[in-house]
Amino acid sequence: MPLSFSPQKTRLGWIGTGVMGASMCGHLIEAGYSTTVFSRTRAKAEPLLARGAKWADTPRQVAEQADVVFSIVGFPADVREVILGDAGALAGCASGAVLVDMTTSQPSLAVEIAEAAAAKNVVSLDAPVSGGDVGAKNGTLSIMIGGDQKAVESLAPLWEILGSTWVCQGPAGAGQHTKMVNQTLIGGNMVGVCEALLYAHRSGLDLENVMKSVSTGAAGSWSLTNLGPRIIAGNFDPGFFVEHFIKDMGIALEEARRMQLKLPGLELAEQLYQKLAADGHGRKGTHALMLALAEMSDIEWK
Amino acid sequence: MPLSFSPQKTRLGWIGTGVMGASMCGHLIEAGYSTTVFSRTRAKAEPLLARGAKWADTPRQVAEQADVVFSIVGFPADVREVILGDAGALAGCASGAVLVDMTTSQPSLAVEIAEAAAAKNVVSLDAPVSGGDVGAKNGTLSIMIGGDQKAVESLAPLWEILGSTWVCQGPAGAGQHTKMVNQTLIGGNMVGVCEALLYAHRSGLDLENVMKSVSTGAAGSWSLTNLGPRIIAGNFDPGFFVEHFIKDMGIALEEARRMQLKLPGLELAEQLYQKLAADGHGRKGTHALMLALAEMSDIEWK
Repeated sequence: MPLSFSPQKTRLGWIGTGVMGASMCGHLIEAGYSTTVFSRTRAKAEPLLARGAKWADTPRQVAEQADVVFSIVGFPADVREVILGDAGALAGCASGAVLVDMTTSQPSLAVEIAEAAAAKNVVSLDAPVSGGDVGAKNGTLSIMIGGDQKAVESLAPLWEILGSTWVCQGPAGAGQHTKMVNQTLIGGNMVGVCEALLYAHRSGLDLENVMKSVSTGAAGSWSLTNLGPRIIAGNFDPGFFVEHFIKDMGIALEEARRMQLKLPGLELAEQLYQKLAADGHGRKGTHALMLALAEMSDIEWK
Repeated sequence: MPLSFSPQKTRLGWIGTGVMGASMCGHLIEAGYSTTVFSRTRAKAEPLLARGAKWADTPRQVAEQADVVFSIVGFPADVREVILGDAGALAGCASGAVLVDMTTSQPSLAVEIAEAAAAKNVVSLDAPVSGGDVGAKNGTLSIMIGGDQKAVESLAPLWEILGSTWVCQGPAGAGQHTKMVNQTLIGGNMVGVCEALLYAHRSGLDLENVMKSVSTGAAGSWSLTNLGPRIIAGNFDPGFFVEHFIKDMGIALEEARRMQLKLPGLELAEQLYQKLAADGHGRKGTHALMLALAEMSDIEWK
């Protein structure tokens, strides 16, 4: 470290080819990088294999053939397994390799992985993203990175391919903490957006007309502009799944408790989303929060 | 009605020359309209008088000399007094006059005023604004209007002077309801913004760096972009006073109860702001919410 990166010299590994991972890995393949992939469900990796990626049967085997190994999986337990498990990536890493976990996961786990990696002379970075499936597809993600700054900077050519914003936020775990900041912002705002539109509906206003008055001023937000029209149309297809957002908020609240930090707004948001999931809406988009709020007031949303 | 508007023909009245009202009335004077003003504190009207406005001793006397009378005062009780009181504007209105209340006030009071006005063949519109002191100064307010649509449209030349967005949202009270939607959006979002930045601080992140990662994506909002840097700098000077925001949220919650609508996020925001005011911060800006949240976790914000 630092490696000198180029499609000619650098071998990449990719673990986890869900909606986000498949798009992101695809950009690296497109840029000419030789890439080895593993995914729990091989079928999801097939389009990448068809574009020239090599398959490996375990995360460990991915790492054995790569200088930089990315992972983006589901829950912290999955991160632990694919990186620290017996067949995990760290076991296959050569000295000098780099692990980059892009899953939204626990800051404390990121620190634990970084320490285990350092013991093998491997660098580990936590690098969760925001921007969702669209950002992954268009390479416009915001990448929030924790870990050694020089290592982060040496990976610049790769960050540039995956996202439009990448910032080293501090040591191991800082990327995850920054993502928690991001999700706390979204949680508070989504409660406001849904309650406000519910108020508008109940008071008999024309919601599209209301948007003209409130969306561009001090009440404006990305969520209102982008998700407001979907809420009004009753379209709750996922951009970002309710159940993943609940996971993220759970991590943030757990960290907050550890830091003796009281976040009543985030606690409320998490409770409302738990109710939403309990009502069977876990696989809808986060803006489906409207359904939980409407139900609390016995309102049937369209 | 509808009147044909022009600086040559139309006489205006203005009641309430606080920070917002003084700027707004100033634009109308500048546009050439003959304007009569009243304010509880005459000193605040002096700059307008120096620019050619006439003084009247009561709202009623303002209305006796005007075709269109604007008001923007403090609380609903003030609105009631300056419009419906013995020395109020309605008592001085000639048949065919128009009353425009731009105070953020109760939708039900707007309806009551409109009914009392109609009985005298006077048109009343509720037209609260968002955009704050800066929007008032620059003529870039968003004006949310309730009342007869034709009357609203006939006042187009005046709305254009005062704001950059004006929308008729429905019958009397609809302007106030729309403003409540606006404030509900801001309340939820401000809780999210302050909790997120508090989390960032507690977890040891560099807040300005964090802003680079979170302010332009799905977590982005007007409040984060515009008030986040002030929060980080510990500058809690008011754009918009805490105590006025509490008034607005109180109206929204009162209306919500009347409509049997449960808004837990707005209730929480209102409680947090009440705590902030109880701690002596009522005359700070709304982003001072950070001080209440920080105190709950025994954190001293800079």
